[in-house]
Amino acid sequence: MDKLTKKIIDLPKRLLVEEPLNLYSGIRGMFRESSKIAGLPPGSAVYTGFRKDTPFNIDLFSYSENTLEEKNNISIEEIINLPKDGNFNWINIEGIHHAEKVKEICEAFGIHPLTMEDILSVGQRPQIDDTENYLFVALKMLQFDSKKNKTLNEQVSFVLTKDLLITFQERKGDTFEAVRNRLRAGKGRIRKEGLDYLLYALVDTVVDHYFIVLEKFGDILEEIEERIMFQGQKRDFDLLYTLKRELIHIRRSVWPLREVISKLERDEIKLIRKHTRLYIRDVYDHTIQAIDSVETYRDFISSLGDLYQSVISNKLNQVMKTLTIFSVIFIPLTFIAGVYGINFENVPEFQWEYGYAYFWSLLIGMAVITLGIFKYKKWM
Amino acid sequence: MDKLTKKIIDLPKRLLVEEPLNLYSGIRGMFRESSKIAGLPPGSAVYTGFRKDTPFNIDLFSYSENTLEEKNNISIEEIINLPKDGNFNWINIEGIHHAEKVKEICEAFGIHPLTMEDILSVGQRPQIDDTENYLFVALKMLQFDSKKNKTLNEQVSFVLTKDLLITFQERKGDTFEAVRNRLRAGKGRIRKEGLDYLLYALVDTVVDHYFIVLEKFGDILEEIEERIMFQGQKRDFDLLYTLKRELIHIRRSVWPLREVISKLERDEIKLIRKHTRLYIRDVYDHTIQAIDSVETYRDFISSLGDLYQSVISNKLNQVMKTLTIFSVIFIPLTFIAGVYGINFENVPEFQWEYGYAYFWSLLIGMAVITLGIFKYKKWM
Amino acid sequence: MDKLTKKIIDLPKRLLVEEPLNLYSGIRGMFRESSKIAGLPPGSAVYTGFRKDTPFNIDLFSYSENTLEEKNNISIEEIINLPKDGNFNWINIEGIHHAEKVKEICEAFGIHPLTMEDILSVGQRPQIDDTENYLFVALKMLQFDSKKNKTLNEQVSFVLTKDLLITFQERKGDTFEAVRNRLRAGKGRIRKEGLDYLLYALVDTVVDHYFIVLEKFGDILEEIEERIMFQGQKRDFDLLYTLKRELIHIRRSVWPLREVISKLERDEIKLIRKHTRLYIRDVYDHTIQAIDSVETYRDFISSLGDLYQSVISNKLNQVMKTLTIFSVIFIPLTFIAGVYGINFENVPEFQWEYGYAYFWSLLIGMAVITLGIFKYKKWM
Amino acid sequence: MDKLTKKIIDLPKRLLVEEPLNLYSGIRGMFRESSKIAGLPPGSAVYTGFRKDTPFNIDLFSYSENTLEEKNNISIEEIINLPKDGNFNWINIEGIHHAEKVKEICEAFGIHPLTMEDILSVGQRPQIDDTENYLFVALKMLQFDSKKNKTLNEQVSFVLTKDLLITFQERKGDTFEAVRNRLRAGKGRIRKEGLDYLLYALVDTVVDHYFIVLEKFGDILEEIEERIMFQGQKRDFDLLYTLKRELIHIRRSVWPLREVISKLERDEIKLIRKHTRLYIRDVYDHTIQAIDSVETYRDFISSLGDLYQSVISNKLNQVMKTLTIFSVIFIPLTFIAGVYGINFENVPEFQWEYGYAYFWSLLIGMAVITLGIFKYKKWM
Amino acid sequence: MDKLTKKIIDLPKRLLVEEPLNLYSGIRGMFRESSKIAGLPPGSAVYTGFRKDTPFNIDLFSYSENTLEEKNNISIEEIINLPKDGNFNWINIEGIHHAEKVKEICEAFGIHPLTMEDILSVGQRPQIDDTENYLFVALKMLQFDSKKNKTLNEQVSFVLTKDLLITFQERKGDTFEAVRNRLRAGKGRIRKEGLDYLLYALVDTVVDHYFIVLEKFGDILEEIEERIMFQGQKRDFDLLYTLKRELIHIRRSVWPLREVISKLERDEIKLIRKHTRLYIRDVYDHTIQAIDSVETYRDFISSLGDLYQSVISNKLNQVMKTLTIFSVIFIPLTFIAGVYGINFENVPEFQWEYGYAYFWSLLIGMAVITLGIFKYKKWM
Repeated sequence: MDKLTKKIIDLPKRLLVEEPLNLYSGIRGMFRESSKIAGLPPGSAVYTGFRKDTPFNIDLFSYSENTLEEKNNISIEEIINLPKDGNFNWINIEGIHHAEKVKEICEAFGIHPLTMEDILSVGQRPQIDDTENYLFVALKMLQFDSKKNKTLNEQVSFVLTKDLLITFQERKGDTFEAVRNRLRAGKGRIRKEGLDYLLYALVDTVVDHYFIVLEKFGDILEEIEERIMFQGQKRDFDLLYTLKRELIHIRRSVWPLREVISKLERDEIKLIRKHTRLYIRDVYDHTIQAIDSVETYRDFISSLGDLYQSVISNKLNQVMKTLTIFSVIFIPLTFIAGVYGINFENVPEFQWEYGYAYFWSLLIGMAVITLGIFKYKKWM
Repeated sequence: MDKLTKKIIDLPKRLLVEEPLNLYSGIRGMFRESSKIAGLPPGSAVYTGFRKDTPFNIDLFSYSENTLEEKNNISIEEIINLPKDGNFNWINIEGIHHAEKVKEICEAFGIHPLTMEDILSVGQRPQIDDTENYLFVALKMLQFDSKKNKTLNEQVSFVLTKDLLITFQERKGDTFEAVRNRLRAGKGRIRKEGLDYLLYALVDTVVDHYFIVLEKFGDILEEIEERIMFQGQKRDFDLLYTLKRELIHIRRSVWPLREVISKLERDEIKLIRKHTRLYIRDVYDHTIQAIDSVETYRDFISSLGDLYQSVISNKLNQVMKTLTIFSVIFIPLTFIAGVYGINFENVPEFQWEYGYAYFWSLLIGMAVITLGIFKYKKWM
Repeated sequence: MDKLTKKIIDLPKRLLVEEPLNLYSGIRGMFRESSKIAGLPPGSAVYTGFRKDTPFNIDLFSYSENTLEEKNNISIEEIINLPKDGNFNWINIEGIHHAEKVKEICEAFGIHPLTMEDILSVGQRPQIDDTENYLFVALKMLQFDSKKNKTLNEQVSFVLTKDLLITFQERKGDTFEAVRNRLRAGKGRIRKEGLDYLLYALVDTVVDHYFIVLEKFGDILEEIEERIMFQGQKRDFDLLYTLKRELIHIRRSVWPLREVISKLERDEIKLIRKHTRLYIRDVYDHTIQAIDSVETYRDFISSLGDLYQSVISNKLNQVMKTLTIFSVIFIPLTFIAGVYGINFENVPEFQWEYGYAYFWSLLIGMAVITLGIFKYKKWM
Repeated sequence: MDKLTKKIIDLPKRLLVEEPLNLYSGIRGMFRESSKIAGLPPGSAVYTGFRKDTPFNIDLFSYSENTLEEKNNISIEEIINLPKDGNFNWINIEGIHHAEKVKEICEAFGIHPLTMEDILSVGQRPQIDDTENYLFVALKMLQFDSKKNKTLNEQVSFVLTKDLLITFQERKGDTFEAVRNRLRAGKGRIRKEGLDYLLYALVDTVVDHYFIVLEKFGDILEEIEERIMFQGQKRDFDLLYTLKRELIHIRRSVWPLREVISKLERDEIKLIRKHTRLYIRDVYDHTIQAIDSVETYRDFISSLGDLYQSVISNKLNQVMKTLTIFSVIFIPLTFIAGVYGINFENVPEFQWEYGYAYFWSLLIGMAVITLGIFKYKKWM
Repeated sequence: MDKLTKKIIDLPKRLLVEEPLNLYSGIRGMFRESSKIAGLPPGSAVYTGFRKDTPFNIDLFSYSENTLEEKNNISIEEIINLPKDGNFNWINIEGIHHAEKVKEICEAFGIHPLTMEDILSVGQRPQIDDTENYLFVALKMLQFDSKKNKTLNEQVSFVLTKDLLITFQERKGDTFEAVRNRLRAGKGRIRKEGLDYLLYALVDTVVDHYFIVLEKFGDILEEIEERIMFQGQKRDFDLLYTLKRELIHIRRSVWPLREVISKLERDEIKLIRKHTRLYIRDVYDHTIQAIDSVETYRDFISSLGDLYQSVISNKLNQVMKTLTIFSVIFIPLTFIAGVYGINFENVPEFQWEYGYAYFWSLLIGMAVITLGIFKYKKWM
C-alpha cells in the first residue's frame, strides 16, 4: 500500500499538464489572446500562444524513392529557392512564435493571410481548408514526454502543395522522429509514395500519440479508482476533478479531429490520391476509437464521482452511528449516577447492604440491554 | 491570499452584468415587452428595451478607395438625400429608443415594417433575413467596458443595400472604433472592398469582442476554482451560481449566431460577393470556437459544483468526527466520575491508599485506549 | 422584506394554474378521457375536457375591405346559410363541450369526422392537417387573466376554407379581442388581406400571449431566486417544484407549436398565399424565441435547485459546527467538574489555599485553548 | 387523510405489474429465453414467454358488408380450408405457447419461419415486416384489468394477407371486444371497409388502451406527489422507484411503436389502401401523444425525486437543530451544576444568604440568553 | 435470506469479468498497446492483446450440400493449397497471438496489411470493410463460460471471399460449436446455402451469446436491487458501481455492432446475396434489441443509485433521530440531577418529607412530556 500511496502523492506532478500554473493558463489559453487581435485587420501576423523559448529552426527532407537529402537549420532563402528537381520536399518549421519569419515564408509560398493567421492562432480548433493552391490542416498534438514524465500540448499545422509539405510546430519535439527514421531507412512504402502519403504518416503519428496519452490517463484513473474504493479521501476527489478538467481539454482536441479527418477522406481533395484515402480511412477509424475512449473515460469519471459520494456518505453514517451508540449507552447511565449523587435524606437504596453491587448491576444491565437493541437493529 | 480575497470580494461588481438590478431585468428582459406589443398589428414601431438615455445620433462614413468623408450627428434628411456618387456609405445610428425616427428612416429606405419591428424589439434572437432589396442581420453585442469594469449587452442591427450599410445600435459604444480607424487609415483591404466587406469587418469585430468577454469570464472562473479548492465557502457557490446564470445568457446570444453566420456564408445571398464569403467563413470558425468555449465553461461550472459539494461534505465529515472523538472519549469518563461522586456507604475503592491515583490511571487508560482505536480506524 | 414575503406567500394563488385542484387534473388532463373514447369508432363526437360551464355561442364577422358586419349569438342555421357575396367570413364558436352542436356544424361544412374528433379532444398536442377542402390547425392557448390574476389554458382550433374561417374555443375569452378591434377599426392591412392573413393575425395573438405568461413566470422565478439566495426555506423549494411542474406543461404546449407553424410556412398549402407566408415566418421566429425562453427557464430552475441544495448543506454545516464547538468546549469541563465532585479521602488539590481559584483557572484555560484551536482551523 | 393513507398502502397491489414476483421477471423477461434459442437454426418454433396456462383457441369472424358469421373454438383444419367466397376473414388465435400448433398454422398460410419465430419470441421489440405475401406487425399490448385492478402486458402479432387477418395473442383478453361488438352491430364503416381497416381498428384499440394505463399511472403519481409533499417517507421513494422502473418498461413498449406505425403509414405497403392511411395517421398522432406523456412522466418522476431529497434534507436539518438547541442550552448549565457540586473548602457563593436563588437566576439567565441568540439567528 | 447473502458474497467472483485483475486491465485494455505500435509503419504485424496461452490451431470445414470433410489442426500449407473443387471452405484459426503465422496466412490469401493490422489489434471497435477481393468483419464476442461461471471477452474477425470463409479467434472457445453441429448434422438450410449464409449463422451466434451474458447481468442486477431495497449497505453500491463499469464495456462492444450489421444488410456488398440479407436483417433486429437492453440497464443502474442514496439518507436520519431523542430526554434530566447534587446550605426541597419521591416524579414527568412532544411531531 505504501508504494501505491507514494505513487499517488506523486500524481499531481505526473498529471497531464506541463506545470501547475499551466492548469490555469489552460482555461485562459482556450482563447486567442483576444486583446491582441480584436480590431486588427484579418490576416495579421500575431502569435497567440505562450511558448516563446524555442529558437526558430527549419529542417528539410528532400527525397525520392532512391535518394534522401536531410538538411538541418537552414535559412528561409534556401527553402524559397528549392530546386524543382521532382524530389519530394518536407520542410519542418519549429518556433512559430517568430511570427514575422512565418509571415515571410507564407508570403513566399503564396499562403493566404487568413491561413497564416490560423497557423499562428494556436488556440484554434483543429481545422482543414482546401484552397486552390494548397491543402491546410491544423491539429492539436498531445505528446507524452517520458523523460520529464509530463504531457505537452501544441498545435501542428500542415500545408501541402504539389511538391512541398510544410509543417509548422510550436516547439522542438520528437513526435515525428519515428517518421523521420522510416524516411531515413527508406524501407516500406514511405519513400515511394508521394507527399500525401507523408502527410498521412505524420497525421497518423499524431493520432497514435493520443493513445499513449490516453493510456497514461487510464493508468492514473485506475489508481484513483482503487484509492477511492479503499479509502475515499478528499484528495482523491480533487485528483478526480483535475482529471475531469484535463479530459475536457483533451475532448476539445479530439472531437473536431473527427470532422477534419473525415473531410480529408471524403471530400474530393485533388492533392490526396484515391490510393492514399484508404490509409486515411484507417486514421479515421483510430480517431473514432480515441473519441470513444474519451467518452468512456467521461462515463468512468462520472461513475467514480458517484462512488466517492457513496464512500463519503457511508463514512459519515459510520461516524454518526459510533457517536449515537456511545451517547445512547452512556447518557442514561450518567444520569443515574447523577441521581444517586444527590444528598437526599432518605434514599432507601443507600441503606441496603449490597447497594453498591445493586447499583452496578443496574448500570451494566441497562448497557447490555441497549447494546442488544442495537444488535437487533443491525446498527452494529 | 489577502490580495486574492480582496479581488474576489470585488467580484460581484466585476461580474458580467451592468448593475445588480440588471440581473433581474436579465430574466425579464428576455422577452419583448409583451404587454406593449401583444395585440398591436405587426410592424408597429415600439422599442422594447430599457436603455433610453442615449441621444439620437447619426454618423456617416462616405468613402471610396481614395476618398473618405466622415460626418457626425447629421440629420435624417441628409442621409435620405445622399448623393448617388458611387461612394460606399455607412450610416451608423445610435439611440434606437427614438422609435419614431427609426420608423422614418426605415420608411425612407424601403425597409419592411416587420424588419423595423425586429430592429426595435431588442429582446429578439440573432437573426438574418434576405429580402429582395436588402439584407438584414441582427446580432447581440457583448462588450467589455474596461473603464467601468463591466460588460454591456446590446442589440446591433445591420441593413445592407447595394450602396448603403445602415447599422442600428441601442447606445453609443466604441466597439466599432477599430473598424473606423482602419477606414480612416485607408490601409489594407477595407477601403478597396465593397460594403459587404465592411459588413464582414463589423460582424468580425462583434465576434472578437465575445472572446474578450469570455476571457474575463475564464479569469473569474479560475479564481473561483482556486477559492473552492482551498476554502469552499457558501459565497463561492453563490458566485458560481451567478456565473452559471450569466453563461445561460451568453449562450442565448452566441448559439443562434452560428446559424446566422452560416446562412450568411452558405446561402446564395446576392449582396455578398463570393470573394467576401471566404472571410465570412473565417468568422464562422470563430463563432464555432466561441460556442465551443461556452460549452466548455458549462462543463467546468458543473464540475466545480461537484467539487464544491465534495468540499462541503468533507467539512461536515471533519466536524462530525471531531464531535464524535471528543464525545466518545469524555462521555464514559464523565460517567465514571459521576459514579464515584455517589455517597455510597461501602465503596471499597475509597478506602484504598492509592484510590485517587488508581482512579486517574483508570480514566487516562480508558482515554488512551479509545484514542488508539480511533487511530487504528484511521479516523484521526 | 415584509412586502416581499407577503407577495411570496400569495404566490401559490398567483401561480400559473386555475385553481389548486387544477394542478392535479393537470396530470390527469394530459390524456383524452380514455375510458370514454377507447373502443368507440373513430370520429365519435365526444368532448374530453372539463370546462362545461360556457354557454354555446356563435359570433360572426363578415367583412370586406370597406364593409364590416358583426353578429353575435346567432344560430347554426344562419351560419350554414351564409350568403356567397364574396365577403370574408369569420365564425367564432365558444363552448365546444356541446359536442352535438359542433358535430352539426362540422357536417354542414364538410369537416371530416377525424378532424371533428381532434377539435373535441382538447387534450391533444397542437397539430396541423391540410386536407383537400380545408386547412385545420389546433393550438394551445395560454392566457393571463389579469382580473383574477390567473392563467387559463385552453385549446383553440382553426378551420380555414376558401371563404370561411371557423375558430373553436372551449370558453369565452378576450384573447382575440385585439384582433376584433383591428377589424372594427378597419385600419392597416387586416381588412384588405384575405382570411389567411386573419388566420395569421389570430395565431400571432395566441403566440404573443405566451410571452405574457412567460413574463409572469419570469417574475415569479426571480422572486424565488431572491428568497433562496437569502433564506432558502423548504417552502421555496416547493414553489420551485411547482414551477418546474408548470413549465413541463407549458413545454408540452409550446414545443409542438414549432412544427405546426413551420409546416404552415413551408408546406405548399394552397390556402395560404405566398404573400402571407412572410408574416407567418415572423410568427415562427417568435415561436422559436418562446421555446428558447422555456428552455432557459428549465436551466434556471435546475440551477436554482442546486443553489437551494447548497444553501441547505451550508445551514446544516453551521448547525453542526455550533453543536460541535459547544460540546467540545463543555464536555471536558463537565468531566473535570465531575472528577472534583468525588469524595476521595486524599485529593491534594482540596487542601491548597487557592484551590478554588486554581480550579477555575484550569477550566477557563482549557476553554480558551479549545476556542483558539477552532479559530485557527477557521471553524468560527 | 386516513382514506388517502389506506389507498396508498394498497398501492403496491395496484401497481402496473401482475404480481410482485413479476417485477423481477420483468427484468429477466426482457430477453428471449436465450439459453433455449442460442445455437438453434433460425426460424425454430420456441415460445419464449411464461404465460402457459391459456388453452389454445381459434375464433373466426367471417363477414361482408351485409353478413357476419362468428365461430368460436374451431379447429386448425377448418381455418386452413376456409371457403374463398370473397368474405373478409379475421382469425384470432389465443395461447401461442402451443408453439407446434402455431407452426402448423404458419406453414399452412405460407408464413416465413423467421416471422413465426417473431410471433413466438414474445420478448421482442414491436416491429413491422412487409413481405411479398403478407404484412406482419407485432405490438405490445398494455391492458388494464379493472376486475383484478392490475395491468397485463402481452404481445399481439398481426398477419394481414389479401383475404385474411390473423391475430396471435398470448392469452385470452377482452381488449378487442369493443371491435368485435362494432363488427356485430354492423354500423359505421367497419363492415364496409376491408381488412386493412380492421387492422387499423385493432391497432387503434391497442393504442387507446395505453392511455388507460397511462391515466392510472398518472393517478398513482399524483397520490405519491401529495404524499411526498406532506410527509416524505422512505416508502414513498420506494414507490417512486417502482414507478420509474415500470415506466422504463412502458417506454420500451411505446417508443418503437412510433416507428412501426410510421412505416405503416408512410411506406408504400400494397395491402394498406391510401384511404385507410388517413386513419393510420390518426393512430400515429395518438402514439406521439402517448410517447409525449411517457416522457412527461419521466420528467415528473425525476422532479419528484428531487423534491423527496429536499424533504429529507429538511427533516434532517430540523432534527439536528432540535438536538443542537437542547445541547447548547443544557450542556453549559450541567457544567455549572457540576462545578457547584464540588466539595471545595472555600466556595464563597455557598455562604451567601441567597446563594441558592442566585444560582438558579444564573442558570435561567444563561438559558434565556442562549434562546435569544437562537431566535435572533432564526434557528427557531 | 442466508442463501441470498451467500449468493451475493459470491457475486464478485461471478461478475462479468475473467478475474479481478482483469477489471483494471479492462481500462488499460481499451487501447491498442500504443507504445508498441506508435511510430511503426501501417500494417505491421503486432498482436496487441494479452491472451498468449492458446496454441496456434487451424480447423477446416470443407462442405457441399451432400458432403462434409472436417480436419483439425492442419498446417498453413494445407489451407493455402486447398483444392478448387467448388466446395465451401470454412477455415477457423485460433491463437492469433502468433502474429507471424497470421501474417503468413494473410499474405497467402491476398489480405491487405491494414486489414491484417485490424485482425491483430484486438482492442479495436467492431468494424466492417468491403474491399475488392474480400469482405472483412470484426466483432467482439462476449461468451459465458458456464463451467467456470465467468464471462470471456474476445475479438473474432471474419474474412469472406468467393470460396472461403476465414475466422480468426483469440483463443479456443465453443461459441461456434452449435453451428458446427448444424453443419455436421447437415439438416436445414446451412449446407445448401453458401458461405454468406455461414457468415450470417456465425454472426447470429455471436449476437445470441450477448443475450446470454445480458441475461446473467439482469439476474445479478435483480439481486442487487433486492439487497438495496432491504438493506442498502456500502458493499451493494460497490457492486452496483462494478456493474456500471462492466456495462460501459459491454456498451462499447454492442453499439458499434449496430452500424456494422446495418452496413452488412444495406450496402450493396456483392458477396452477400439478396436472399441472405433477409436473415441479416433478423440479426440486425436482435442487435437493436441488445442495445435496447443495455440502455435499459443503464437506466436501471442509475435509478438504483438514486434508491441507494435514499436508503442511506433515510438511515442517517433514523440514527440522528435516535441520538436526538435520547439526548433531548436525558440532558435536561442529568442537569436537574446535577443541580440537586450541590451542597447548598438551604435547598428547601431536601427537607420535604417526600423530597425523593417528588424528585423522581419531576424527572419522570419531564421525560413523559418530552416523549409526548416527539410523538406529536411524528418523530417516533
